[in-house]
Amino acid sequence: MKAYVYVSLKKTVLDPQGKTIQGALQKMGYRGLEEVRQGKFFEITLDGGLGREEAQAEVERIAREVLTNPVIEECRCSLAE
Amino acid sequence: MKAYVYVSLKKTVLDPQGKTIQGALQKMGYRGLEEVRQGKFFEITLDGGLGREEAQAEVERIAREVLTNPVIEECRCSLAE
Repeated sequence: MKAYVYVSLKKTVLDPQGKTIQGALQKMGYRGLEEVRQGKFFEITLDGGLGREEAQAEVERIAREVLTNPVIEECRCSLAE
Repeated sequence: MKAYVYVSLKKTVLDPQGKTIQGALQKMGYRGLEEVRQGKFFEITLDGGLGREEAQAEVERIAREVLTNPVIEECRCSLAE
């Protein structure tokens, strides 16, 4: 079973890295862009020792307590397979 | 319209950052983990000047030509809304 945790900056937090990518893309001639924001994700392979609900809870706990900085970031978890 | 580009290391490429996170989580007592791999994603807001198919093509071109290093990374695009 795999779990995915997506961590992104809160909407209210400036994302200079995304802004730089956006500027570069526009200078390179790519069209149709309004905004680019960058985030990170974690692909967690679970060993199958936990049930689906337990796994979901454990992954959410990891995302909240370790992978996300709650001051500036928000996260979203999803379980696959 | 929003587009998401997910970039991750190819399966055959070692991910020391993911390994470190995995080790840290296990040391902290989180259970059920087999592997952790880290990737990045880009949330691209499109200005609506392109049709859906055009936008999809443009985002795939950006992902392939700029956001991904094809030697060690692979990418996946999705269009939302």
